[in-house]
Amino acid sequence: MKFLHRPDLYAWSCFNLARNIDFNGVAWIHSEGNILIDPVALSNHDWNHLESLGGVNWIVLTNSDHLRAAKEIASQTYAKIAGPIGEKDNFPIFCDRWLADGDEVVPGLKVMEMQGSKTPGELALLLEETTLITGDLLRSPIAGTLSILPQAKLRNPQKAIASVHRLTKLPKVESILVGDGWSVFRDGRKRLKELAEVLSIDG
Amino acid sequence: MKFLHRPDLYAWSCFNLARNIDFNGVAWIHSEGNILIDPVALSNHDWNHLESLGGVNWIVLTNSDHLRAAKEIASQTYAKIAGPIGEKDNFPIFCDRWLADGDEVVPGLKVMEMQGSKTPGELALLLEETTLITGDLLRSPIAGTLSILPQAKLRNPQKAIASVHRLTKLPKVESILVGDGWSVFRDGRKRLKELAEVLSIDG
Repeated sequence: MKFLHRPDLYAWSCFNLARNIDFNGVAWIHSEGNILIDPVALSNHDWNHLESLGGVNWIVLTNSDHLRAAKEIASQTYAKIAGPIGEKDNFPIFCDRWLADGDEVVPGLKVMEMQGSKTPGELALLLEETTLITGDLLRSPIAGTLSILPQAKLRNPQKAIASVHRLTKLPKVESILVGDGWSVFRDGRKRLKELAEVLSIDG
Repeated sequence: MKFLHRPDLYAWSCFNLARNIDFNGVAWIHSEGNILIDPVALSNHDWNHLESLGGVNWIVLTNSDHLRAAKEIASQTYAKIAGPIGEKDNFPIFCDRWLADGDEVVPGLKVMEMQGSKTPGELALLLEETTLITGDLLRSPIAGTLSILPQAKLRNPQKAIASVHRLTKLPKVESILVGDGWSVFRDGRKRLKELAEVLSIDG
């Protein structure tokens, strides 16, 4: 897995041939048990790396379109899966826990629900105030610039834009780890505000 | 290949198991012929992608430790190879052209020599004033922060630091595409100045 901006965070990627972007999984190495977020398939090397760092306790899925390799990883470990409560009635795989806005996965990893996205109650996660981890709504196919899903894919564009505006209110966001595309490692809040401004004009 | 920050630039990566970082190749799609810089191996998908964008005319190698897949790509195409003039006498593969400080590979792609690095006259390339493409000296194993090679690997640390200081004088650098690690897509000059400050203190 690749080093990120802090020593307890790692990412690994699968290049998506249809879109020519990377799909990214995130691992938070944590004293109470490691957490994977929207994990893509792990290579043998990355499996060994993860095992050397303590394996995995929880897999958090931000939405049902980001199942990726979660089921395979859970079936080969004792990892439990947490998913968005907004999809509780129709989630395609078994979840041990449902996450709602304001929950904490573990202390330091806060849950926010994004409204109006492709799926109900898509999750974004705020790690110790400074690192935002996003699922599908917030993404970055063009390096250095955040964007959101195309309007046609959104259940409710106005609510989705309001969710982005809510993210701009988080005072300390420096890094934004996106599930799809190029993560941001500096001035995350500034990048969010740039996006929110464009969305206000277009939306 | 992955989209970057401008529509005529692409990157593709090979994950390096020994260092847990990505090694990156860059492609500039150009009306006078496409240019690859320090190309790592291309997947079939990326070969097809590159072909669809016009193939490759030139491969630029910043130093002899970044040969990567250059020879294989050149042998399967009509691409010519350009290397650093500082290594002319001992470069391990044939070069059609030697590049020196102040040269232009093609108009808009300026050559700078980094002194004191692992190899003599390592190249950095400045693309239309705003995108800096670096070989080995300037790198980013930790996301969001630029660094240089460890002092033990440098031929002359003081000259290497002076070369970094020279890069901070480039007035319009916004993006920095590193051969090893995490590229920077915004505020590149600011990141260079942060690095130069640390180097001044340490060095």
